[in-house]
Amino acid sequence: MSSRSPSPNTAALADDISAGSRAALARAITLVESRRADHQAAARELVQVLLPRTGNAVRVGITGSPGVGKSTTIDALGMYLIAQGHKVAVLAVDPSSARTGGSILGDKTRMARLSHDTNAFIRPSPSSGTLGGVAAKTREAMLLCEAAGFDVVLVETVGIGQSETAVCDMTDFFLALMLPGGGDELQGIKKGLVELADMIAINKADGDNVKRANITAADYRGALHLLSPRSEHWHPPVVTYSAISGTGIAELWQKVLDHRRAMIASGEFAARRRDQQVKWMWTMLEQHLMARLRADPSIRTKVKKLETDVAEGRVAPALAAEQLAEMLT
Amino acid sequence: MSSRSPSPNTAALADDISAGSRAALARAITLVESRRADHQAAARELVQVLLPRTGNAVRVGITGSPGVGKSTTIDALGMYLIAQGHKVAVLAVDPSSARTGGSILGDKTRMARLSHDTNAFIRPSPSSGTLGGVAAKTREAMLLCEAAGFDVVLVETVGIGQSETAVCDMTDFFLALMLPGGGDELQGIKKGLVELADMIAINKADGDNVKRANITAADYRGALHLLSPRSEHWHPPVVTYSAISGTGIAELWQKVLDHRRAMIASGEFAARRRDQQVKWMWTMLEQHLMARLRADPSIRTKVKKLETDVAEGRVAPALAAEQLAEMLT
Repeated sequence: MSSRSPSPNTAALADDISAGSRAALARAITLVESRRADHQAAARELVQVLLPRTGNAVRVGITGSPGVGKSTTIDALGMYLIAQGHKVAVLAVDPSSARTGGSILGDKTRMARLSHDTNAFIRPSPSSGTLGGVAAKTREAMLLCEAAGFDVVLVETVGIGQSETAVCDMTDFFLALMLPGGGDELQGIKKGLVELADMIAINKADGDNVKRANITAADYRGALHLLSPRSEHWHPPVVTYSAISGTGIAELWQKVLDHRRAMIASGEFAARRRDQQVKWMWTMLEQHLMARLRADPSIRTKVKKLETDVAEGRVAPALAAEQLAEMLT
Repeated sequence: MSSRSPSPNTAALADDISAGSRAALARAITLVESRRADHQAAARELVQVLLPRTGNAVRVGITGSPGVGKSTTIDALGMYLIAQGHKVAVLAVDPSSARTGGSILGDKTRMARLSHDTNAFIRPSPSSGTLGGVAAKTREAMLLCEAAGFDVVLVETVGIGQSETAVCDMTDFFLALMLPGGGDELQGIKKGLVELADMIAINKADGDNVKRANITAADYRGALHLLSPRSEHWHPPVVTYSAISGTGIAELWQKVLDHRRAMIASGEFAARRRDQQVKWMWTMLEQHLMARLRADPSIRTKVKKLETDVAEGRVAPALAAEQLAEMLT
């Protein structure tokens, strides 16, 4: 399949990335994010060449609503990890960045310390239109970061639509950040989130907020208690911490490592990684086929009309699907 | 698209179904469930012809673990609805029936009263191997039942794997049945379920169990309170009832109607139906393409090998997807 040798350019870029060149890594991610067909072919080749060097990072997904202190948390957690000798890559899946034009400047200012550290690599969300496209590019960027020697990858999302599922599907541990609240102020746990989170962490547990944060944590613990855990080997804990003071950051990371150990011991770690890879393949196939249905303007028009006919109840879904299948061949 | 007239056989069958013939309905569902290509083409044509007569039923999904009293509940609810002048169809999505060979006898004995009533139509789950196949056939069977004049369709599932999502995707209201419990006995709410349920109903609230059922209901209410509702116009209620004594069945159904009124008023009812239809079309396309990848033994072998290579980390998902796409054309 890839028995042919990579092109000289790809081989050189792969070598530079393996040697830890940040410039090469950034260039490779740009290649992954490009829409040009030749760039995409080169990116596929590059990822395939680097594949044996990937998969060794701790992959952590982080979600939280705006205002929860996500960037401050990643800044604090990232600096803690670097102090422990890790190299930390920060990526994002933010489907809204296609509209807003990304947030490079925002990321740099929001992660004040991390953005200046040579052991950190921060890349804003690709802006590729659909969630599927954004997620696909972030997944490939993650592999490139791993090949470049980053052994912790943090993937953040603001949780728009299905973006949390997408990030959960590419990481080993999914962390939900929340704020202290009380009584009626208590923000609801978004339903999808409960299903995905491997841990809930309450930020801003500092100063006058400590007591409120503890009460909030107890409330969430009570709620989670009523839910069957995803794995019998891991009951999602609820912790409190302060990104500003740093209190609880070490304990938070310890939970990530505890989870990792439990998952590896039970065999779920390997199984989850395998399942993620295979699911990713099928998702890419789907995107490939959808792209084909969108590429030709006349086909695009027919697809649009079929969708409307089906939505309005004029055409049965099975009949429409048959016609779509014919268009693809 | 379907401007050509249906074949005489299809037209005759469609007429018989529209006239309310149970025999014709049963025959049509058998056609839908057949794997023969000519049967499938005839089924597609039939559903397309009957499409204008579909969509008018109240579609309710019902889930619950074995032992919760699902059949007894459907029996009680169905008889209540028939007494109100409704015609009730009972369908099922049970992917395990492919293994066990279905449960026709079981369904007939379990729904003692309903199975003998001429205003009810009970059909066991199709046994088609994959969940996708089972769900697709149940969806089409639902349309046929509607065309035959059934104005309430109850779709039950035992909740294996993603079957609850599949049933939720084809119904207007998703009902989760639970048992009274207390303290540590309290069964966990399955995580996926919390996200889907439009109502939780605690069965066996009779005799000595009434108090325990009320406590359980309060516990679940507390848990649901912490979760953001799916719609701002509907907060999933928690009710208690007894399928054996019939207590609470009328109130349970009233909640279904309340939900329907609220969803129609907010426009979410029409939107959900539209989304379901379009999603169904894309799902059918996916199944169509997957079937093509499985049809040719040599292609099937290649797909299997690609899946393994991707799972083991030898081939990058994007490269594998490209090769799959080539096989499809």
